[in-house]
Amino acid sequence: MVEYPPAVKKLMEALRQLPSIGPRSAERLALHILREDASLAEGLSSALRAARNSVHACERCGFYAEGPLCEICSDARRNPKLLCVVEQPTDVIAFEKSGSFNGRYFVLGGTLSPLDGIGPEELGVDALLRQVEQDGTEEVVLGLSPDTRGETTALYLAGEFKKRKVRVTRLATGVSVGGGLEYVDSVTLGHALAGRREI
Amino acid sequence: MVEYPPAVKKLMEALRQLPSIGPRSAERLALHILREDASLAEGLSSALRAARNSVHACERCGFYAEGPLCEICSDARRNPKLLCVVEQPTDVIAFEKSGSFNGRYFVLGGTLSPLDGIGPEELGVDALLRQVEQDGTEEVVLGLSPDTRGETTALYLAGEFKKRKVRVTRLATGVSVGGGLEYVDSVTLGHALAGRREI
Repeated sequence: MVEYPPAVKKLMEALRQLPSIGPRSAERLALHILREDASLAEGLSSALRAARNSVHACERCGFYAEGPLCEICSDARRNPKLLCVVEQPTDVIAFEKSGSFNGRYFVLGGTLSPLDGIGPEELGVDALLRQVEQDGTEEVVLGLSPDTRGETTALYLAGEFKKRKVRVTRLATGVSVGGGLEYVDSVTLGHALAGRREI
Repeated sequence: MVEYPPAVKKLMEALRQLPSIGPRSAERLALHILREDASLAEGLSSALRAARNSVHACERCGFYAEGPLCEICSDARRNPKLLCVVEQPTDVIAFEKSGSFNGRYFVLGGTLSPLDGIGPEELGVDALLRQVEQDGTEEVVLGLSPDTRGETTALYLAGEFKKRKVRVTRLATGVSVGGGLEYVDSVTLGHALAGRREI
C-alpha cells in the first residue's frame, strides 16, 4: 500500500502537534498547503520562526515583548503608580480591549497551586513585591479569575500587599453587561445584589 | 489600546490562511505555539518548507512524488497494462488503502467543466492518451466521482479510449459495505438492484 511521501507525512505529524488538530484535520490542512501556492507554506513557515524567535516575556511585567520591555512598560504615559496583577499574558489583551485601565501590568503566569508545586516563588511574587516597592505603587488591582484558584491567589497577594501598606483592590463581581438575567448563576446574582449601587 | 506584538499578529494572520481556521482559532493556535517549547514552532516551520519544496507532482501520473517519479510509477511490480484514472492525488491514497488495485494511476487534477474553462487540454488528456498508447495499456479503469461532473468526464474519456480500441471499465455502483439500507438513497439502490449478482 502506497502512502503519502515522507515529507507530507512529517508535515501532517507536525500539524497534529497543534491543539484541536486531529489526524483528519492535519491531513486536510497538509493537502491544502500542498495544493495552494508555495507562498502560503513559506509565509506560515517564516511567521512561525519569527514569532517564536522575536517574541518573549517582557523583563518587567511578563507580557509579550519584542524588545527587552513590552509596549506597555516602555510607554511613559502609563500611570506607574497603578498596577494590575493578571494570570496570563492574554489577560492583558482583555484588559486593554476594555480601554478602562491606564496603569501597568504584572503577569504571574498562573495561580497558586501547592499540589502542583506552584508556590509564590514559581509565580515570581518576589519580583512583584520588589517592583511595587521600587515604583512606590499606590494601588494594586488583582485582576485574577473569579474561580477557586484565582481567589486563593488573590487572598494570598492581598495579605502580602497589606503588610506593606499598599492599597489592594479587586474586580467588581456582578451581572454581565448585555446578558439576560435568566442566564446569570445564583452566586453571581448574590454578589451583584450585595454590591448594588444608587442610580 | 495595546495589542499583540507585530510578530504574533503576523503569525495569527498566516494561520488564518488555512482552511477552517477563523480568527479565534488562529489566536488560540498562535498563543499555544508561543507557550510551548520552541521546538514545536521550529518543527512545524521546517516541515512546511520541506513538504512544499520537496513534494511535487509525479512526471508520469501526477501523484505526489519527491523524486521525478512517484513511488507507484517507479515500482516495477506494478502492472503497467492496467491504468486507473482519478481526479485528485488523494484519490490514489483511497484506492491504495483498498488494497485491491495493483496497476498504475493517472491523476487528471479535476473534471471537465467547460463553463470554468476546464477542457481536455487543462486535464492533460493528451498526455493520458499518449501514455496509454506507449504502454500498450489493456484496461483503463475510470475511478472518477459518481457525480454529474465525474460522469461527464468519464463519458468523454470512455469515448476517446473506445476510438483507440482500449478496454474501459468503471467502478461498480451499489450500496456501501457495512451501511444500513435505510440510509441508501434511491438512485444508488436502483443501481445496486440493476447490478445484482448471483450468490
